[in-house]
Amino acid sequence: LKKEAMDLCQKKLNNLTKPPGSLGVLEDIAIQLAGITGSTSPSVKNKTMLVMAGDHGVVAEGVSAFPQEVTPQMVLNFINGGAAINVFCRHAEAKVVVVDVGIVGDFTHPDLIQKKIKQGTDNIAAGPGMSYDEAVKAIEIGIEMAHEEVQQGAALLGAGEMGIGNTTPSSAILAACIDLPLEQIVGRGSGIQDEALTNKIRVIQQALDINQPDATDGVDLLAKVGGLEIAAMTGVMLGAAAHRVPVMVDGFIASAAALAASRICPKVTPYMIASHASMEPGHQHALRLLGLTPMLHMNMRLGEGTGAALAFHLVEASTRALEEMSTFADAGVTSS
Amino acid sequence: LKKEAMDLCQKKLNNLTKPPGSLGVLEDIAIQLAGITGSTSPSVKNKTMLVMAGDHGVVAEGVSAFPQEVTPQMVLNFINGGAAINVFCRHAEAKVVVVDVGIVGDFTHPDLIQKKIKQGTDNIAAGPGMSYDEAVKAIEIGIEMAHEEVQQGAALLGAGEMGIGNTTPSSAILAACIDLPLEQIVGRGSGIQDEALTNKIRVIQQALDINQPDATDGVDLLAKVGGLEIAAMTGVMLGAAAHRVPVMVDGFIASAAALAASRICPKVTPYMIASHASMEPGHQHALRLLGLTPMLHMNMRLGEGTGAALAFHLVEASTRALEEMSTFADAGVTSS
Repeated sequence: LKKEAMDLCQKKLNNLTKPPGSLGVLEDIAIQLAGITGSTSPSVKNKTMLVMAGDHGVVAEGVSAFPQEVTPQMVLNFINGGAAINVFCRHAEAKVVVVDVGIVGDFTHPDLIQKKIKQGTDNIAAGPGMSYDEAVKAIEIGIEMAHEEVQQGAALLGAGEMGIGNTTPSSAILAACIDLPLEQIVGRGSGIQDEALTNKIRVIQQALDINQPDATDGVDLLAKVGGLEIAAMTGVMLGAAAHRVPVMVDGFIASAAALAASRICPKVTPYMIASHASMEPGHQHALRLLGLTPMLHMNMRLGEGTGAALAFHLVEASTRALEEMSTFADAGVTSS
Repeated sequence: LKKEAMDLCQKKLNNLTKPPGSLGVLEDIAIQLAGITGSTSPSVKNKTMLVMAGDHGVVAEGVSAFPQEVTPQMVLNFINGGAAINVFCRHAEAKVVVVDVGIVGDFTHPDLIQKKIKQGTDNIAAGPGMSYDEAVKAIEIGIEMAHEEVQQGAALLGAGEMGIGNTTPSSAILAACIDLPLEQIVGRGSGIQDEALTNKIRVIQQALDINQPDATDGVDLLAKVGGLEIAAMTGVMLGAAAHRVPVMVDGFIASAAALAASRICPKVTPYMIASHASMEPGHQHALRLLGLTPMLHMNMRLGEGTGAALAFHLVEASTRALEEMSTFADAGVTSS
């Protein structure tokens, strides 16, 4: 990050009419944005949520509360503007872009960006979810989409997702990166019961045993135990950083994508902003590994990018404070 | 609260295209709003932040990092739109109303609502801050202002403040309500150093010893160790509840006002929504007494109503989800 702009931003913040540091995380974000963009007047008015969709062969193992057909159904819902991610993005005045990187079936729609790599991943409990090359392709699609949105003016990106079963590969990615028992990091996803949770833990252990993913290689992680939409989210994060644009990290799936991104390029994490603390137990561990702290504690566990979309408002509040607040001198306020 | 509307709202939420309960606190808020308003389509589009301003005789004891003249200076800043509360309310599309209930001096401005009761409180370390009647008057001003804003269409209120020195009376109110050593609940306010903090604790102990406030009587608390703007904030909360309008509770000062409100009328707390977790150590204790849980963890300690203003967006997101999300049936999504 650009140190000089960060120092200038700190000075600018100290002259605004408030006790120094009293805006807390909003001041940290302002300084981070200055470091990312090189500007002490960063604007994040143009925001895009890139929602990546893909299916997971591992649903055959009974790891999800919802059937696979819900992936295209919800994608259609996204396109029609009726899902939570649409509502929260409208509320934040953010654009939603939906990309098919691996939905099972032949679902097409003029508003769905068609980048399908394959008909969902293969079952990770029986072998790799995809080849190394396919994982690279999925990451490249995310990079490309980030590039297009930045070209069109986006100054803040979010990576969202739809993929029935995707807390299972996300848990596997995290498990490969951390020395904790699966019981502490695997959760109920969209709402499975006790017996299904026990089965889910067994399936994840089997996926790790069979595939032996290399936690130092983000691409290997994504290929062997990840998912197409997770890899594309990793690409969005890498692409955002490459363009010096901040990227909002959503809940558990996004944190797994962020972990993979950090294993591909450790310099990507300073471009990330954490949004909310998910109810999924692995999320806090993934954020800790990334060195990120969430702002919103809402007990949410929906995914899609919804927590990130809610946090757009906060990042924008930070930039508006920097831009619109008067200084002690201008307002004639005694500074101490 | 209206139980029937809450049950209907819960049913409505369960039919929306998301796993049941997955929006967490946003679903709790939707149900709370249904209970408050009796509607399963509550709107909080019209929001008003009522900023109450008053001074504190206790600043003579050296309890604040800023001199008393900053109160009218910052109030002028509010009127000119240059403070953090203005920026965040503009960002949330909320109206800001600034009311003088006890600023020291003759400051007037056409956009400042003039309701001055007295030239600041008397020094609470030497006797009561104001008379019982004056506290009642200040509360009534808050009720009246809430009434006016609701008449003009406000569907969500916030209570903000400006008053140099006001973490001292707020700490005294909390201390009278809780069995904890002052060291655990008194903080640095706008940023005092160690020595001044020790002095602040001594001053608060003296205020409690001299005044012996009755913690079961919210008016007595406000009169003896409170403040004019704190009492007016208490009034805003009581007035909001009386009109069946939700009210956002900001940081430490607001939580002290809310405590006093709950001692005047315990039925007021279900109308409150907690916004952020302040860095001021007493805040978490006050919220716990009120049974409230904050959504935003931003390490903020600015006051004014800034945390509440940031949380307006979240409450509105809750109502928009309820109104704009499609149902499983309408979207053709398999519900499990």
